Amino acid sequence: MEVQTSNNTLTRDEFVARLIMLGNKQYHDKHPFNKRMHAGALSKDEMRCWIINRFYYQQCLPSKDALVLSKLPERADRIKWRERIEDHDGRTMSDGGINSWLTFAEAAGIEREILLEGKQLLPGVKFAVDAYVNFCRNEEWWLAVASSLTEVFAPTLVSLRIGIIEEHYSWIKPSGLDYFRTRLNQAPRDSQHGIDLVMTGAKTFDQQMQALKAVEFKCNVLWSLLDAIEFQGVKR
Amino acid sequence: MEVQTSNNTLTRDEFVARLIMLGNKQYHDKHPFNKRMHAGALSKDEMRCWIINRFYYQQCLPSKDALVLSKLPERADRIKWRERIEDHDGRTMSDGGINSWLTFAEAAGIEREILLEGKQLLPGVKFAVDAYVNFCRNEEWWLAVASSLTEVFAPTLVSLRIGIIEEHYSWIKPSGLDYFRTRLNQAPRDSQHGIDLVMTGAKTFDQQMQALKAVEFKCNVLWSLLDAIEFQGVKR
Repeated sequence: MEVQTSNNTLTRDEFVARLIMLGNKQYHDKHPFNKRMHAGALSKDEMRCWIINRFYYQQCLPSKDALVLSKLPERADRIKWRERIEDHDGRTMSDGGINSWLTFAEAAGIEREILLEGKQLLPGVKFAVDAYVNFCRNEEWWLAVASSLTEVFAPTLVSLRIGIIEEHYSWIKPSGLDYFRTRLNQAPRDSQHGIDLVMTGAKTFDQQMQALKAVEFKCNVLWSLLDAIEFQGVKR
Repeated sequence: MEVQTSNNTLTRDEFVARLIMLGNKQYHDKHPFNKRMHAGALSKDEMRCWIINRFYYQQCLPSKDALVLSKLPERADRIKWRERIEDHDGRTMSDGGINSWLTFAEAAGIEREILLEGKQLLPGVKFAVDAYVNFCRNEEWWLAVASSLTEVFAPTLVSLRIGIIEEHYSWIKPSGLDYFRTRLNQAPRDSQHGIDLVMTGAKTFDQQMQALKAVEFKCNVLWSLLDAIEFQGVKR
């Protein structure tokens, strides 16, 4: 029985409204670990554990975005999507998000080798991030794109973080915060293109619901990442 | 029984020597269709059929290169490899290899829509090109990179083609030949990086032989593409 017809298809505004409702409930700014971070309650070790583990996510973004790019049917969209790979890998070795995160880690007293070698990477973080990359590898292009739409919620969180780190974690050198400043400009540009693509690719109400499920999946990835850092597993 | 030991591992020069030997035998410049092209013996329809069908190869290169990029472990290599995607997709919609090939087609009296819609795409061409993309999707990064090493043989063929088209196919407007001129600079730069990567990734003699098999596979892709154009199947 075909319940949904094309008449139910959401407009862009309706889709974005549902997306924001989803984010209000499930985005990782609601996670206890993030709440403690923002209340200034994390120990140095906890903050450093987050910086070290979140790096794995940053490091996998170019691969994830290259997998999405490889599926995009329109050249104009591939040209735009390529900017994301540039943003993370950098135009050269001395810029880009991965490099900025390494600088952020150094500002927090962590040697970049610790991040690059991945020796303190928690299994739960690895599994969550790998699940995200595999989702983008295996799903249809508009679902892979949809999973990036947590970017709609990111700027608020990122702008808060700059102030919070400066206020509560002043042992981190302020020169290390460039990553967050740069993302404030990149994320809104990216999320608009992402929404455009999803509106094009998800042609029916059912497909739009699938796209929202992809966003929910991505919220779970980010949430699990913080779970793993919060609990750090039962020690062997 | 482990026959090959690490003592057998080829030097870069030895590897390149075997690569060139392979190209001398199996590169598609030896294909009868290419020989007829270079002898000026193709009819207008045959030349146009090649231009239309070879476009599918051009069109798939950014996806193929994004798949390779998604696997490259080193950021510096991803930054370099990204240039290939830029070269084919373009910095903007009005440059890049795909766009130049469309201009080449127009110079040969073919509307770009015929290429973009793919209606005259031969099944054998589609299968060969898709096999190449899937090889890069599924194989290890250094084998995916190795399959691009036909670029070592390309400049000679490409530089010949400019003169041959000008001489034998003068009904094609000379303004359409930019694609070939640009590739003369891009291919040598790319192939040096490709060889570097394969020398890093293929650590044993056996792996180097696998890399050469990947080049042979790629020669078969290009060869099959011309087979399909030469024979055009048994007509239904």
